[in-house]
Amino acid sequence: MCIQGGVPMDFSSYFPIWNKLTPTQQQILERNAVLRKVDKGTVIHNGTVIYNGTVECTGLLLVISGQLRAYILSDEGREISLYRLFDRDICLFSASCMMNSIQFEITIEAQKDTTMWVISADTYQRIMKESAVVANFTNEIMATRFSEVMWLMEQIMWKSFDKRLAEFLLEECNLEGTNILKITHETIASHMGTAREVVTRMLRYFQNEGMVRLTRGTVEVTDKIRLEQLQND
Amino acid sequence: MCIQGGVPMDFSSYFPIWNKLTPTQQQILERNAVLRKVDKGTVIHNGTVIYNGTVECTGLLLVISGQLRAYILSDEGREISLYRLFDRDICLFSASCMMNSIQFEITIEAQKDTTMWVISADTYQRIMKESAVVANFTNEIMATRFSEVMWLMEQIMWKSFDKRLAEFLLEECNLEGTNILKITHETIASHMGTAREVVTRMLRYFQNEGMVRLTRGTVEVTDKIRLEQLQND
Repeated sequence: MCIQGGVPMDFSSYFPIWNKLTPTQQQILERNAVLRKVDKGTVIHNGTVIYNGTVECTGLLLVISGQLRAYILSDEGREISLYRLFDRDICLFSASCMMNSIQFEITIEAQKDTTMWVISADTYQRIMKESAVVANFTNEIMATRFSEVMWLMEQIMWKSFDKRLAEFLLEECNLEGTNILKITHETIASHMGTAREVVTRMLRYFQNEGMVRLTRGTVEVTDKIRLEQLQND
Repeated sequence: MCIQGGVPMDFSSYFPIWNKLTPTQQQILERNAVLRKVDKGTVIHNGTVIYNGTVECTGLLLVISGQLRAYILSDEGREISLYRLFDRDICLFSASCMMNSIQFEITIEAQKDTTMWVISADTYQRIMKESAVVANFTNEIMATRFSEVMWLMEQIMWKSFDKRLAEFLLEECNLEGTNILKITHETIASHMGTAREVVTRMLRYFQNEGMVRLTRGTVEVTDKIRLEQLQND
């Protein structure tokens, strides 16, 4: 379902750099943003389908609500989840045709019913080419995704910590007789001989994967079976 | 060893966008480029050493001659080679302090005696902030490295092809009774049921790793032992 229409007031808030754009650039972005709603499970951008020798170029996605998952797919159909996108996140690689040097393709699917703005690659590229502010903003988005992928690669290569943390959480649940652990990231870090940031980052990853739910001062284990699988992998 | 001096004529050729820079921007880059020569084995940028709470920011590296290797290092001292940089390549992540969103650190060492230009992160960032052309150029460099890392991750996760290719090359050497195989990438691809591009990319990777040497129409196996290790890993 695609609805073209006037964008609401808060469209600008997706771009921290909005006030540094010219009125013309603002208008171009606003007029070319298309509202799109998709059901859970929809593949929004397919990195493996080739039309006329090139992969489809869906455009920039600005998540209004819902959840997207970016992954790569092997020839044999195996997947690696790269990162997830939540409210207010921007997906750049669904518009990878904008940049010659992007030599990989990701697939993006909705993990929940999702509403988003879509800005065509042509439109965005036109502004990025003329605006240093937009180009630098785009750089930062790419650097963020790059950082997520690097983190993932470290986990894959040196995957002791995710297993150790899964083991720790399951053990604590058994010890405390509850799935809702009253424990700070700091405390977990000192138990495990690592830095708080490392624990926080991995817990957030677990949360994104639906294995735990984090609130202030608590870690709730929401999917014991997957944590056990992770531990034993 | 650091020598500050006038840059030679071909300095501009490192930047395909040179003619789109203002004379002032060109001067700033030229005046702030420092020639640096390092011996093989030198760690040029250390992503693990922290001064005053931040990682060192070596600056942009423009390889004149030699070879650099970028890798990440685990807490236990294990390495993953990410990519290599050859003549005329630009290293961006040794200036990662330029971008807030880069949340990983790489280490860069000289794999051969290397001569390079170093441009401080401050200098480059100043120009990137004001120039859409430089910001977009930087985007393309980052996209190139991102693509290399994505490729590496696919290899690591679905590592059948590197092993299969190692096996194929070793078998051919045995069959032909020579380490210099007269075979095209096209032929290897059809033997292995894959695309020529896939074979070329993997052979280049093998070449970078010193396991083969490629010339027109031939693949020379230069390190049989490592190919065998790869095959049996």
